[in-house]
Amino acid sequence: MARVVVDVMLKPEILDPQGQAIAQALPRLGYTGVADVRAGKHFVLDIADEVSEQTIHEIADTLLANPVIEDFTITADPA
Amino acid sequence: MARVVVDVMLKPEILDPQGQAIAQALPRLGYTGVADVRAGKHFVLDIADEVSEQTIHEIADTLLANPVIEDFTITADPA
Amino acid sequence: MARVVVDVMLKPEILDPQGQAIAQALPRLGYTGVADVRAGKHFVLDIADEVSEQTIHEIADTLLANPVIEDFTITADPA
Amino acid sequence: MARVVVDVMLKPEILDPQGQAIAQALPRLGYTGVADVRAGKHFVLDIADEVSEQTIHEIADTLLANPVIEDFTITADPA
Repeated sequence: MARVVVDVMLKPEILDPQGQAIAQALPRLGYTGVADVRAGKHFVLDIADEVSEQTIHEIADTLLANPVIEDFTITADPA
Repeated sequence: MARVVVDVMLKPEILDPQGQAIAQALPRLGYTGVADVRAGKHFVLDIADEVSEQTIHEIADTLLANPVIEDFTITADPA
Repeated sequence: MARVVVDVMLKPEILDPQGQAIAQALPRLGYTGVADVRAGKHFVLDIADEVSEQTIHEIADTLLANPVIEDFTITADPA
Repeated sequence: MARVVVDVMLKPEILDPQGQAIAQALPRLGYTGVADVRAGKHFVLDIADEVSEQTIHEIADTLLANPVIEDFTITADPA
């Protein structure tokens, strides 16, 4: 068994209202120095060793992200 | 400026219907070998260098995660 | 074909950091008078006429909501 | 005090992988007859009576939805 992490973010040119709400709320709560917040999705997949990187890429591209508006990164999780 | 990543996941003992829907959908789409999927949130924060780790921890604990049902991890992003 | 809406909200006693971030951000953006914001999920299902209310309830309970932390409501959508 | 509901959905022409995952998972779990699922966000706002509909519209347009990729509807909640 292996563990893989897929992080999905809105493309940089697409406005992220959820991240902006957090960024706007911070100074009001006394936290200064945070210039920007972007919010995305974080998926942890437990996979059999024989699942290829190509397959993970297809799964991310089909079921985890919408490639029109989102980018994703795949990372092997040593944990 | 530094970049920090906060990943928020439901605690392991809490059911994750969104992750389960994805795990259930995969075999139907021809993808086998994925034993489990958990879905969480991924936040990217751009912060001034003087923002302490303690502050990031408080922000995560207050505005990004609900500590009753969620765990979070903080990672410095070298990018 | 019929259309059914399932709204899923965190139970009232569970803290909602996303809603709170929005509520905190509003005054800073010049919007006063919003006392509280709660954030949930909204699912729209197109179903065959023979799908029973009981089935929709089971689907919501299994795949759309986590009954330990969330409540849901089912509404027929006339549109 | 009044209660207002804002529902936010991806525009119809934008693919919704989360909804598709649920739709794909249903037959595998024994549920047939669901032709389509779309997933969105559901916000419940408690507002002072003097907050205008125009203000709610601006809040939805700025902090709850991303108008480039999402549509929203505003409903007064009698509850």
